[in-house]
Amino acid sequence: MSELRFGCEEQLSLRAVAGFPVVAPGDDVGKLAAAALASSGLVPEPCDVLVVTSKVLSRAEGRFVDLTTITPSPRALDLAATVGKDPRLVELILAESSAVSRAAPNVLTVRHRLGFLCANAGIDASNAAPPSAPPGSGPWVLLLPEDPDASAERIRRAVAPDGRLGVIVTDSFGRPFRLGTVGCAIGLAGVPALWDRRGELDLFGRVLEQTITGLADQIAAAADLVAGQAAEGRALVLVRGLSFPPSSDGARALLRPAEQDVYA
Amino acid sequence: MSELRFGCEEQLSLRAVAGFPVVAPGDDVGKLAAAALASSGLVPEPCDVLVVTSKVLSRAEGRFVDLTTITPSPRALDLAATVGKDPRLVELILAESSAVSRAAPNVLTVRHRLGFLCANAGIDASNAAPPSAPPGSGPWVLLLPEDPDASAERIRRAVAPDGRLGVIVTDSFGRPFRLGTVGCAIGLAGVPALWDRRGELDLFGRVLEQTITGLADQIAAAADLVAGQAAEGRALVLVRGLSFPPSSDGARALLRPAEQDVYA
Repeated sequence: MSELRFGCEEQLSLRAVAGFPVVAPGDDVGKLAAAALASSGLVPEPCDVLVVTSKVLSRAEGRFVDLTTITPSPRALDLAATVGKDPRLVELILAESSAVSRAAPNVLTVRHRLGFLCANAGIDASNAAPPSAPPGSGPWVLLLPEDPDASAERIRRAVAPDGRLGVIVTDSFGRPFRLGTVGCAIGLAGVPALWDRRGELDLFGRVLEQTITGLADQIAAAADLVAGQAAEGRALVLVRGLSFPPSSDGARALLRPAEQDVYA
Repeated sequence: MSELRFGCEEQLSLRAVAGFPVVAPGDDVGKLAAAALASSGLVPEPCDVLVVTSKVLSRAEGRFVDLTTITPSPRALDLAATVGKDPRLVELILAESSAVSRAAPNVLTVRHRLGFLCANAGIDASNAAPPSAPPGSGPWVLLLPEDPDASAERIRRAVAPDGRLGVIVTDSFGRPFRLGTVGCAIGLAGVPALWDRRGELDLFGRVLEQTITGLADQIAAAADLVAGQAAEGRALVLVRGLSFPPSSDGARALLRPAEQDVYA
């Protein structure tokens, strides 16, 4: 299969990369990823995609916040009363966001500064204490990484400086309409956001009119099945079997413009 | 790994099942799936999941409609003017739905009679002509299957009458907020809709509070990468590497109750 066209082999495989450590602030995730791949005997092939959970990057960037250090603004206090959340957490959510989308009891969805709509600005309270946290400190929370596209690109260069590797940084998002979180791409390097199949022919030779697949999000969802989110600690997943053309897409290419979104 | 607990092996594989034919009205999809697996040398293992695109079932059920046979109601004519779609198609969309969610130029999202919110009631115009269609007839469209949970269960029994096979019937849905379609589960047999991880411990021994993963939808999204939607004609994908407890969930278990949905 050509590396320059979209496609998938008859078998797609997703492999958790063993030997990737629990990351601490200041760690070089690209270097750690390259080492874990090498020690697992995994040599990236063209159009492999390496999927990294955002939590790894947040930890490496030291995006931990001790809620006891936060003083909520009047706006955060008001909103916290509406949604029934810790006002200090709400202060952080607002600081990480450009707009509030919905606020209701137990619900606070926002437009994150990175552009996507999500609950609680993606701020997480699991695996959220820094390695240096004194006993009894916190509660700690973990903000999303500063610039996941740039992080993905750094990892891509560290792991496959000359190769056709794709890197996707993922987070787990809830969704309107449906229950359960799904992996979504919040950072991209070297892999297209979307697979635009308009113009291809269907089985009967009719031109497909409307099919644009959320390629990077589907890869993120698939990898989330393997990554787990708890004690497995599988932060790196290598996806093999896809092919796609070179791309400079960032994760914003996955976002529906607000003015075209009847639900935003 | 125990078959009674949720989990994923270090490697997850998704394989397109070769030898599955283009389905015609009246075909027994379960029998065809069992034959295709056998001729591919694939013997389902416990907790394998067989993913089937809904189009296969729609074709087997003869859910083809020739739009020239449809007379739109006054309501369909009104709505068609708002959304800019064929009034005959809008008539079918309304007949397949319990409510309209959003109607705007180029947008018609509805609550499908099966419970989920989706665009155009999932009615598709690609691969939509029946084998018996006389030249020049149509335009033809294809409705979603009558009862995808029941179809999934029939396939499960045909392929693995005594085994722990999961079957998922999928369709590709657009989404609020994000571009690109993703595979979603619209029919389930033998596989849980959700993976409820509340109560598990994170890497640092802290109890996970809020993590319920959209298991069946993530499997559907992963399989969609392999299935493609066009000339490949890969209607069956076998997913291997997961484990999960027995389940009698139907696909409605994936739906957020409307009264808990701030976006519906």
